[in-house]
Amino acid sequence: MTIDINCDMGEGFGPWPMGNDAALMQHITSANIACGFHAGDAVIMHKTVRLALEHGVAIGAHPAYPDLQGFGRRNMQLSPDEVYAMVLYQIGALRAIAEAAGGKLHHVKPHGALYNAAAKDRALADAIARAVRAAGGNLLLYGLSGSALIEAGRAAGLRTCSEVFADRGYQSDGSLIPRGQAGALIENTEKAVEQALEMVRNQRVRSPGGQWVPLQANTICVHGDGPHAVEFARALYGAFEREGVKVLSFEF
Amino acid sequence: MTIDINCDMGEGFGPWPMGNDAALMQHITSANIACGFHAGDAVIMHKTVRLALEHGVAIGAHPAYPDLQGFGRRNMQLSPDEVYAMVLYQIGALRAIAEAAGGKLHHVKPHGALYNAAAKDRALADAIARAVRAAGGNLLLYGLSGSALIEAGRAAGLRTCSEVFADRGYQSDGSLIPRGQAGALIENTEKAVEQALEMVRNQRVRSPGGQWVPLQANTICVHGDGPHAVEFARALYGAFEREGVKVLSFEF
Amino acid sequence: MTIDINCDMGEGFGPWPMGNDAALMQHITSANIACGFHAGDAVIMHKTVRLALEHGVAIGAHPAYPDLQGFGRRNMQLSPDEVYAMVLYQIGALRAIAEAAGGKLHHVKPHGALYNAAAKDRALADAIARAVRAAGGNLLLYGLSGSALIEAGRAAGLRTCSEVFADRGYQSDGSLIPRGQAGALIENTEKAVEQALEMVRNQRVRSPGGQWVPLQANTICVHGDGPHAVEFARALYGAFEREGVKVLSFEF
Amino acid sequence: MTIDINCDMGEGFGPWPMGNDAALMQHITSANIACGFHAGDAVIMHKTVRLALEHGVAIGAHPAYPDLQGFGRRNMQLSPDEVYAMVLYQIGALRAIAEAAGGKLHHVKPHGALYNAAAKDRALADAIARAVRAAGGNLLLYGLSGSALIEAGRAAGLRTCSEVFADRGYQSDGSLIPRGQAGALIENTEKAVEQALEMVRNQRVRSPGGQWVPLQANTICVHGDGPHAVEFARALYGAFEREGVKVLSFEF
Repeated sequence: MTIDINCDMGEGFGPWPMGNDAALMQHITSANIACGFHAGDAVIMHKTVRLALEHGVAIGAHPAYPDLQGFGRRNMQLSPDEVYAMVLYQIGALRAIAEAAGGKLHHVKPHGALYNAAAKDRALADAIARAVRAAGGNLLLYGLSGSALIEAGRAAGLRTCSEVFADRGYQSDGSLIPRGQAGALIENTEKAVEQALEMVRNQRVRSPGGQWVPLQANTICVHGDGPHAVEFARALYGAFEREGVKVLSFEF
Repeated sequence: MTIDINCDMGEGFGPWPMGNDAALMQHITSANIACGFHAGDAVIMHKTVRLALEHGVAIGAHPAYPDLQGFGRRNMQLSPDEVYAMVLYQIGALRAIAEAAGGKLHHVKPHGALYNAAAKDRALADAIARAVRAAGGNLLLYGLSGSALIEAGRAAGLRTCSEVFADRGYQSDGSLIPRGQAGALIENTEKAVEQALEMVRNQRVRSPGGQWVPLQANTICVHGDGPHAVEFARALYGAFEREGVKVLSFEF
Repeated sequence: MTIDINCDMGEGFGPWPMGNDAALMQHITSANIACGFHAGDAVIMHKTVRLALEHGVAIGAHPAYPDLQGFGRRNMQLSPDEVYAMVLYQIGALRAIAEAAGGKLHHVKPHGALYNAAAKDRALADAIARAVRAAGGNLLLYGLSGSALIEAGRAAGLRTCSEVFADRGYQSDGSLIPRGQAGALIENTEKAVEQALEMVRNQRVRSPGGQWVPLQANTICVHGDGPHAVEFARALYGAFEREGVKVLSFEF
Repeated sequence: MTIDINCDMGEGFGPWPMGNDAALMQHITSANIACGFHAGDAVIMHKTVRLALEHGVAIGAHPAYPDLQGFGRRNMQLSPDEVYAMVLYQIGALRAIAEAAGGKLHHVKPHGALYNAAAKDRALADAIARAVRAAGGNLLLYGLSGSALIEAGRAAGLRTCSEVFADRGYQSDGSLIPRGQAGALIENTEKAVEQALEMVRNQRVRSPGGQWVPLQANTICVHGDGPHAVEFARALYGAFEREGVKVLSFEF
């Protein structure tokens, strides 16, 4: 039994740092690296790629809407053709930086509002999948377990990687409880770790109503920007090792 | 005897077009395509790549300083490491879009203030050459004939392509007469064509003082943004053909 | 009987021009000047303000979502507090430039996707109205006739100016026929002028189904970016003068 | 005897904070608030203005080159007319936000590379002074003591405020020792406080060679971004109070 632990990385910009990338790299297996649209200028991308290589962490592109101020978290009404071109642009930019540093691009995971939109909007999801396929190199597509993005990736013949969240509550239809609603966040580390183990071992999660909801857990997301991000990543990694779950970057 | 004719392309942004790319593509052999920093968003890059492919025109990256408002023409004090990362970023972005459309990246030509700075500043020129080499794929580096950029490219083991201008006056040291000074621009088409032929056939140009100045003419630049750009490109192309000079995209 | 003719102005950016502002200024009474978020850098704002002053045209701020590439036409999910601060920012920027040139700010008209969102979303409309009131100087708020923005302006104690379109079709509920649907655009100049006269004289418009729909016509919008923009503006202005309608910038 | 203590404020952007503005506000009398070009979006400007008002700190505009990634610290070759328009734009944007919150704009201090360029380049300094004068409202212009900017401000009939640095070494001609050279930074708090007291009481500073260099000390700059920024500001403020120097926002 294996699991991938992924985390968003390289989300500073210019003079502004974000997160403790160096510490987190020790407890993850896949890094989603910002590509300049929501965060991450070229210099930061270069540093983050080298950090990932030093830690043997798989390098992924983390494309987003073009919205630095909103950190890619504000929904924007882009056409599928715009999304296709922008995702391809961001993948290419990171790939050149990764390969120049001796690395190799492993996966693509959309960021923020683009991730959420692509979980539900199949046309948008198809545009992303087309871009990932067109980029070549047999890239993995990361998306929310059970989402339109995973379906679009499969339909496009891509290798997909279904993502689950240790610290988010799930509704009985398998979607996340929206932020702001009760149960959206699991702030207790022990409970989050327990949920993660359940997801990985039994491919299911319990809804607030007590139902077991099936899901696919290929990779588990660790948030890098909270105050306890490093401790949580360490606890999660440790729990998996203790329970005999191998932590490895995902290969389809 | 052969010559390459190159032109800056895809220099619109969002709702704003620039130049008559479709008409110019018929009269050139290499396109330098803006990569989003001084012009050219991802959608426009995609369109311009397809246009180049339709016309069998070689696709080049045209990286620039990050300055949309100044169109990359304002000097900016960037460190060589910043330039390295930004050039790599822009090359990668265009390459992904070119390859997705079935094309292949052929060359890199820096734009505007970056081109001018790299003609004189060897540290900057080295940073660009390092980026082009790191990008792989045996890319050609286009630079001003006799410039620090061409030297840096050779020192880095790159294939280089020396550029000359039909419609610009040259000083006796082989540098361009700065814009704003007398003789900087050759606005008479006949004279510009005559200068171009002299450059290609005899690898030299006459300075305002009447001296013959040696230079290397692998590619000749056509400006795409003037009102007579298309006519001039057509006249130049026609003159080369009449005089038995083959017009071909440059191969080292 | 009087009418104001308004037009979006100063919508170039950096090296990219847009529209024929100088010619249009002769046929309008109010200019909505881009404030840097969807178009119009500080230099262009300065030029456009001086052009408006030369022609005695009233100067208005034309605030937008922060989206140069999308020209402010892509919907973005901003909170009312973000919209409040951004609208205030843009009003202030233009006011300083207008007053430095000896002018005075007359009105505020939101642009593109912000205009459309504020026509229906009262919370957004209230945020804009709060910003206009907070900016002081007794500014007029321009908005679609019958829209939530006009209601919000009135509720905030602002002077409002209801806008109608000569060249757009209207639905029976007074809303515009969405672009892309049959009847959205009236491309025949004669018909558009006829609709404009009906709107101004009788404060009504005929829907495709033949119904008379009441509206309030304080200002009529001329689009500046089409190929026939200048001719249409001239025709409209001429028709109003012939029919005894005074063309004047709006005062509540 | 009085002195003003000023500090750059509001230099976060979007999701990225910078500095401890809330703590620093207690130890300064003038805030230079970023206006969106090097840092400080409209929402952050609004928050920072309110924070200044709560602490009775004078509100100043901190205009910069348009360079978020470089934090306005990279030199850019802008024409005086571009600088004039951009400074006016930024002053206006902040003034609208300040006045909407019940405040009043007190001063203008250029940021980073623009500050340094304006200290030496009189044409640039004149452009800034023209913009400040054109903005009206009798704004103070802050600039390096003895600089071209202070001269330009006086020539333009502006009230000027000469700035000194407690923690920077000075050359015998009154200019700052460039960063990177020995003696550029005074990292010992006691020595920096001592230098500050000498500057304020005797309007002079000692160069590394031991010479007393005359200068004008109307305001003293506290850097907000170092790890000890708050402690240093507190120590400086305390030393002035102990020594009978009144700490007040500057009035000419």
